[in-house]
Amino acid sequence: MALGEFDLIARYFANCGPQRTDVRVGVGDDGAVLAPPLGHDLIAVVDTLVEGRHFPPDSPPDSIGHRALAVNLSDLAAMGATPAWALLALTLPAANERWLEQFARGADRLLRRYGVALVGGDTTSGPLTITVQLLGFVPRGLALRRNGAQPGDVVMVSGTPGDAAAGLALEQAQLVAAEDVAVALRQRFLYPAPRVELGVALRSLASACIDVSDGLGADLGKLCTASGCGAELELSAMPLSGPLIAAVGRARALQLALAGGDDYELCFTVPPTAFSQLVELARVSSTPIARIGSVTERSGVVLRDGATVTQFSARGFDHFR
Amino acid sequence: MALGEFDLIARYFANCGPQRTDVRVGVGDDGAVLAPPLGHDLIAVVDTLVEGRHFPPDSPPDSIGHRALAVNLSDLAAMGATPAWALLALTLPAANERWLEQFARGADRLLRRYGVALVGGDTTSGPLTITVQLLGFVPRGLALRRNGAQPGDVVMVSGTPGDAAAGLALEQAQLVAAEDVAVALRQRFLYPAPRVELGVALRSLASACIDVSDGLGADLGKLCTASGCGAELELSAMPLSGPLIAAVGRARALQLALAGGDDYELCFTVPPTAFSQLVELARVSSTPIARIGSVTERSGVVLRDGATVTQFSARGFDHFR
Repeated sequence: MALGEFDLIARYFANCGPQRTDVRVGVGDDGAVLAPPLGHDLIAVVDTLVEGRHFPPDSPPDSIGHRALAVNLSDLAAMGATPAWALLALTLPAANERWLEQFARGADRLLRRYGVALVGGDTTSGPLTITVQLLGFVPRGLALRRNGAQPGDVVMVSGTPGDAAAGLALEQAQLVAAEDVAVALRQRFLYPAPRVELGVALRSLASACIDVSDGLGADLGKLCTASGCGAELELSAMPLSGPLIAAVGRARALQLALAGGDDYELCFTVPPTAFSQLVELARVSSTPIARIGSVTERSGVVLRDGATVTQFSARGFDHFR
Repeated sequence: MALGEFDLIARYFANCGPQRTDVRVGVGDDGAVLAPPLGHDLIAVVDTLVEGRHFPPDSPPDSIGHRALAVNLSDLAAMGATPAWALLALTLPAANERWLEQFARGADRLLRRYGVALVGGDTTSGPLTITVQLLGFVPRGLALRRNGAQPGDVVMVSGTPGDAAAGLALEQAQLVAAEDVAVALRQRFLYPAPRVELGVALRSLASACIDVSDGLGADLGKLCTASGCGAELELSAMPLSGPLIAAVGRARALQLALAGGDDYELCFTVPPTAFSQLVELARVSSTPIARIGSVTERSGVVLRDGATVTQFSARGFDHFR
């Protein structure tokens, strides 16, 4: 590398993200020294992005920085955690200063948005790979799990799944759409908004929660497997965005919503008695959520489209991948 | 990959490492739920190993698993921390079952040796890259730092630095040695022993501490810079192993000890008044430590060899790299 490792860290990451008073020692020693809050559980998540697999080569560097944090913030959100501290392991083919500056800017925006301090990291040379570890907190015993759904619970999803998969297809020139539609959908792939506030609000409401990264159908399937139950989705209730329908039509939009991936929305279940509380909560936090089905005793995810009922299978929806 | 991501995790990492009662939720949800002990600071470290850069291609997989944990345990040791929890981000070109089984075995041995639970991870496909995050604890306020050395303090190092660099040179066929000597030195590169017990014991004794990963001279230089001081090393006091001297002779052994890298020993400073306590501690913990010099007011690392004094510079020692 043209720049030494130390210079790299010092120049681009020293002022990345906000300061926090619970960080006793941040970047610059062998490890970070952190003060966990009393009465809380610590939540730890890790996710890796590999160039060419999780994002196209030559993606905007600020999008890569944004997504490396967003995918981890989304995992924390699915646990109901308040994010606190991040560690960044960055493997780079070369120390391109412009790239680093933009990558750090993308990371910095999300760190500041959620009050997360960058407390440590490691930079190495090699094929472009970014691993982020995030640490957060929930009051003791209140972490959201995948395994608490009960038959009769309502199945909910935030936002409009499918947009990100269409955005990626546009990025990769596998799809063409009108300019305004394309811009909106690309944005959803490049700069996903993790549902941190929603996750925190769901702590005392949701019976189970998972983040939607591999496609709503597959991720809901994991939640159901962990909970020992199944789910029936009502396709007419699926929240599809205007840009997505404009770009691919309603039938394909449904496929992408169910099996597209990269949404970083939350899919969760609530007891029917908690539903009205949930609607109020969504209104206050101005997070769009939709009721898309219900939890069943019988395992598997079933799709209802009017009178037609089919079994969801990820393979049947595996088009762009 | 031939195996799905979930199968991979389930098969090779589900029983990797010990169980701990402070892990409320381990691998299998969106995040781990952990219970930090009261009255302690949390120490977080992260380090990445990239094939071809941190280990030769076709290294024994159990050595890669061992080293991925050892380098992080060494960082925790340098902070005086007791290790507790690990997260593993593994990027693999293919899911070779034999490779995975051996990699997991190497990781498992060190996890069990130090009582560290594997609480989360991520597996992705791409060029072989391993990032480990380790979390550990020190009683509040007792973390070891790099910045506390004072002029007059004694400079110490554990073990016999230089062995690992010779071991790597042997692995890469850049050096030839007698069979028994070669085996001993290779072992030191492939399976370094992090100084976890020593780090914990130094909490109330050392004025500053750093782990030796980039070469003793360079790492002591970082400790001195952080502490606003310098150091003078007495070359005749440098602990050199028999195998190292046998393989490369005394002059080259000294160079490797000062600038070789990959040692994962601890370099630390203690006030002269604490020296006798330290000797007793090393005896009890049966960790070899050596007094190699003293902290000076004047910045920089100086090498004394009889009457000759020279300034240490990493470049002047940069032979195998």
